[in-house]
Amino acid sequence: MLLKNGLVLYGENYQLIRADVLIEGSRIIKVGRGINAGSDVVIDCSHSLIIPGFVNAHTHSPMVLLRGLAEDVPLMEWLEKYIWPNERKLGRRDIYWGALLGLIEMARSGTVTFVDMYFHMEEVAKATMEVGLRGFLGYGMIDLDDEGRRKAEIRETEKFREFVLKLNSDLVNFILAPHAPYTCSLDCLRWVAERSSDWGSLVTIHLSETKGEVESIRKKYGKNPTEILLEAGLLNNKLIVAHGVWLSDEEISLLSKRGVTVAHCPASNMKLGSGVIRLRNLLDSGVNVALGTDGAASNNTLDMFREMRLASLLQKVYSLDPSIVKSREIFRMATLNGARALRLNSGVIEEGKLADIAIIDIRKPHILPLNDPISSLVFSAKSGDVDTLIVNGEIIILDGEFQTVDEEKVIDKFLGVL
Amino acid sequence: MLLKNGLVLYGENYQLIRADVLIEGSRIIKVGRGINAGSDVVIDCSHSLIIPGFVNAHTHSPMVLLRGLAEDVPLMEWLEKYIWPNERKLGRRDIYWGALLGLIEMARSGTVTFVDMYFHMEEVAKATMEVGLRGFLGYGMIDLDDEGRRKAEIRETEKFREFVLKLNSDLVNFILAPHAPYTCSLDCLRWVAERSSDWGSLVTIHLSETKGEVESIRKKYGKNPTEILLEAGLLNNKLIVAHGVWLSDEEISLLSKRGVTVAHCPASNMKLGSGVIRLRNLLDSGVNVALGTDGAASNNTLDMFREMRLASLLQKVYSLDPSIVKSREIFRMATLNGARALRLNSGVIEEGKLADIAIIDIRKPHILPLNDPISSLVFSAKSGDVDTLIVNGEIIILDGEFQTVDEEKVIDKFLGVL
Repeated sequence: MLLKNGLVLYGENYQLIRADVLIEGSRIIKVGRGINAGSDVVIDCSHSLIIPGFVNAHTHSPMVLLRGLAEDVPLMEWLEKYIWPNERKLGRRDIYWGALLGLIEMARSGTVTFVDMYFHMEEVAKATMEVGLRGFLGYGMIDLDDEGRRKAEIRETEKFREFVLKLNSDLVNFILAPHAPYTCSLDCLRWVAERSSDWGSLVTIHLSETKGEVESIRKKYGKNPTEILLEAGLLNNKLIVAHGVWLSDEEISLLSKRGVTVAHCPASNMKLGSGVIRLRNLLDSGVNVALGTDGAASNNTLDMFREMRLASLLQKVYSLDPSIVKSREIFRMATLNGARALRLNSGVIEEGKLADIAIIDIRKPHILPLNDPISSLVFSAKSGDVDTLIVNGEIIILDGEFQTVDEEKVIDKFLGVL
Repeated sequence: MLLKNGLVLYGENYQLIRADVLIEGSRIIKVGRGINAGSDVVIDCSHSLIIPGFVNAHTHSPMVLLRGLAEDVPLMEWLEKYIWPNERKLGRRDIYWGALLGLIEMARSGTVTFVDMYFHMEEVAKATMEVGLRGFLGYGMIDLDDEGRRKAEIRETEKFREFVLKLNSDLVNFILAPHAPYTCSLDCLRWVAERSSDWGSLVTIHLSETKGEVESIRKKYGKNPTEILLEAGLLNNKLIVAHGVWLSDEEISLLSKRGVTVAHCPASNMKLGSGVIRLRNLLDSGVNVALGTDGAASNNTLDMFREMRLASLLQKVYSLDPSIVKSREIFRMATLNGARALRLNSGVIEEGKLADIAIIDIRKPHILPLNDPISSLVFSAKSGDVDTLIVNGEIIILDGEFQTVDEEKVIDKFLGVL
């Protein structure tokens, strides 16, 4: 496949060059001018930016089902009155359709890879293969210090891992997903740490999302949440912690030393009134910070363009310092840092990297003039601007049309209720 | 014109009803089921929300020319190193093309009416008539306490008013636009107040955007900026103040008593690190709060959907209270409150109101399921979802295609630089 004559954001420094991009199999094999390789598929990119696709480092894709169901209410009411009672009603088929809708939304907004934590994850795996995105899928374990429940959660996790191994797919990856230090016992977290080591599996967990949750951990253990993860043996470079809003200096330093990734979720932190992450401190301490949308119930979209914009704007206003974070740092969080967390040879446009690419049509009134391409991507571009999406060398969307899944059928399913 | 079988957000309380909307001339004359009026134009709205179009209560539309030019830098550097030197280079033709691009962007994001302050406003007026939006256009006066400059600014303002009167257009309206209390002398502000009274003209001004600016006014006058407006005779219900970030309790109470409108610009306040408006206090004090994008150099778009989302998210995170502001309050700010400020019989879908309408296609993965239409509009919808736009009873965009202006020609103009 040949992407012809595009404006390429090349390499880790995002040099803007006019070039062709040649893809063979799942990889980018050449970037340069005037490539003539007799490719089967040639995509004209004369009016397009060719950029690395986004990595959504934290989401619960089927929660699109609950979009708009619990608005403008405090977190505990949000959970207890709306989210949990509605989640209890969700069956396998609901999860399947929800995941399909969520993945279609993610693809349309330029996301190539996502980290997902929910239940009935076999259904999310099916949707992932149908749409053709790269998923890191985890069954969300919650044992609430109950041994019976812990055993059941462990069985579910083992069962789902078996399911993923049998799929033998390039796209569907297994990840361990204990829910949080306040919903999982130390025994549960220790079991996860051991399996991560045995299986070589990545781990994702919620950490330090709200002030109240941090206080309750301190009350229970006399320690900060990050120290609990350390004690459980989880604090290493296979771990992705979501949120990290209320981290102390000591915790940030610990996360940095141990190579842990923080998946920052600005929209969710804002909508639920959780708080403002100390982004500058994290980046300056050398922590790998990625970006995630969280679930649509607290966002209400799965759109990494909006997430980049928010991540930047929130830091600027909270510090009253517009220079506190640069657009290219934000763009890197949404792409390369996510790929690094997942140990993917991806996240930049460069020879040898996985062909995980979004092609953005710049002939849009809200993008022009293109004075600064990175700022255009972070502050101006939006999901409708993704014309073509390539994941693992396969075309998912071409000229705005899905090539893998019947989008209209999925849309019609959700129109039925009106 | 008949809008057939839509999901109508009806009246001030946004009751969701399945209905037809009949338009004659510039007005909505009937809303109900099964209307058969033998209309010339019938638009099928079975899969669409019919909503009042947005009022962008504060912008500088030609600043799209500077989009992305001054990124991630402090305000004074932003102004002195990037904005002012570049503005000096802008000629009449630049302003014309910039305004065209800006208005096209506004129309695509559902905006029907906007308040604009800049220079070479005759060109903005031309663009406004070409695109077919409703503009309240003001020449931005800055005299910096210099009498010669004041006289020149007064002449410019009078000249532009004459120009607007001669146009005799339903769409182009004159507004007085002194820049700010820190850039205009008291004499200049007093002149504006007198003309506003003589001419019956509305007035718009920047007020209390940054902490530094408030401090410099206190140092110069020993008063708060709002008290300066009071002293000048400007504080009445013909005034729209942009920003209002650093208002004291006393100032808020004064604005409320005098019926002044505040045009809140969250994206700009965030991007420039200006601060967080006290929205709850303003609304609870009965101040009419509208919503604006400000210019694209500090946003970087002119998109009222993004502005609504930000306005809500910013309050929630800053107060750590997700219930502090409701979606319907935000939606009202973006529509009815703006119309009220401009004394327009518009801003809601109801019999007798001006036909200023956006039609939103809900067959989109990021909008469905439509659990809560107002929350869908505030948190999920985006500019690409506006299928059809009607201003003053005229169709501006139909099924995604501009009916009034050659969008492609404008886009091509700005692609030329690549």
